[in-house]
Amino acid sequence: MGRPSNSEERRGQIVDGLLEVMARQGYAQATIAAIGKAAGLTPGLLHYHFETKQDILVALVERLTGALALRVQRRLEAAGDAPRARLHAFLDAYVAMGEDADPRAVAAWVVVGAEAVREPQVRALYTQAVGETLRQLRELLGECLRDEGRGTRQVGRMAAGLLSAIEGAYRVSAAAPGVLPEGFAAPTLRRMADGMLDAEERT
Amino acid sequence: MGRPSNSEERRGQIVDGLLEVMARQGYAQATIAAIGKAAGLTPGLLHYHFETKQDILVALVERLTGALALRVQRRLEAAGDAPRARLHAFLDAYVAMGEDADPRAVAAWVVVGAEAVREPQVRALYTQAVGETLRQLRELLGECLRDEGRGTRQVGRMAAGLLSAIEGAYRVSAAAPGVLPEGFAAPTLRRMADGMLDAEERT
Repeated sequence: MGRPSNSEERRGQIVDGLLEVMARQGYAQATIAAIGKAAGLTPGLLHYHFETKQDILVALVERLTGALALRVQRRLEAAGDAPRARLHAFLDAYVAMGEDADPRAVAAWVVVGAEAVREPQVRALYTQAVGETLRQLRELLGECLRDEGRGTRQVGRMAAGLLSAIEGAYRVSAAAPGVLPEGFAAPTLRRMADGMLDAEERT
Repeated sequence: MGRPSNSEERRGQIVDGLLEVMARQGYAQATIAAIGKAAGLTPGLLHYHFETKQDILVALVERLTGALALRVQRRLEAAGDAPRARLHAFLDAYVAMGEDADPRAVAAWVVVGAEAVREPQVRALYTQAVGETLRQLRELLGECLRDEGRGTRQVGRMAAGLLSAIEGAYRVSAAAPGVLPEGFAAPTLRRMADGMLDAEERT
């Protein structure tokens, strides 16, 4: 008790509780009582750490996007300066099943996107997160195109295509396990990106 | 009353009712009473036309995949014999917003995929449908590769990448409306497919 880490640990347990209830029943059914039960904590303790259910959701999305941002940063640093290597590292960070990957986080992200279809609060957080991913993809693709002296007119469509392929690989993996060939995503996303880049004429 | 079409009309109303309740509350919460209320029909009439809730779900998935199969068939017929034109026509049929497209069906399909994450009955139907799409994509991509004398070793990964991009474009459009550039999907899927095909060496 009283250690600085105790509050973070409790908040983590509560976020896990929301995740478990959402995956089973959806966000609308995730009452404070149900989240507390899943977390093994009293509703009073939940209210001590979070004012509302939406605050727990914000903490969940922050945890998922924060862990991904850290993985992206590490892989970009390891990739060096070449624009295509940086783009490949970014795509790998999203879909590769390396040692620093987290299959549970992927499943959680699929549930967040699924709930975004019907819950405006979830939708706002999901929209912000995919909008940020799209912005980063546009930037990395733009670096490749400029570096190679190619036109950048299609950069928005290319970024949208790669974002769709990432989100779709998550969706199909979670909703129809076993249908997609194992380990296909990282090499295939690189091929898609390279194929679109190579097709742009040099100016 | 008594016309052959009356039963089909009633069944259609009931399927619409399930769709509306699923989109709002999810499949688990779609009771026969709730579906009946949304359809404006009595529970007794629902039980006359469908034995169980799952039978209504089967009819819903059949309607969505049946309408798509018809659109695919028409566009493939119009595309002629060239393998790349056939592949492009197939991709267009899935994502293009032509006169024969149906935005409401796309939204419904996103909900079906979202429910597949947590409902085994929905998952089985979703898995079957995406498995069939994957099979068709492999066939069309294989035709292109063989026609151009290219290796077919990557055909499974290519098909998985395009299926992911299709399902992801649906997911992001429904869960984060306005984030993806309008009309990006059809031309971008063609570019992704062509880029991957062109990268395969001629044997």
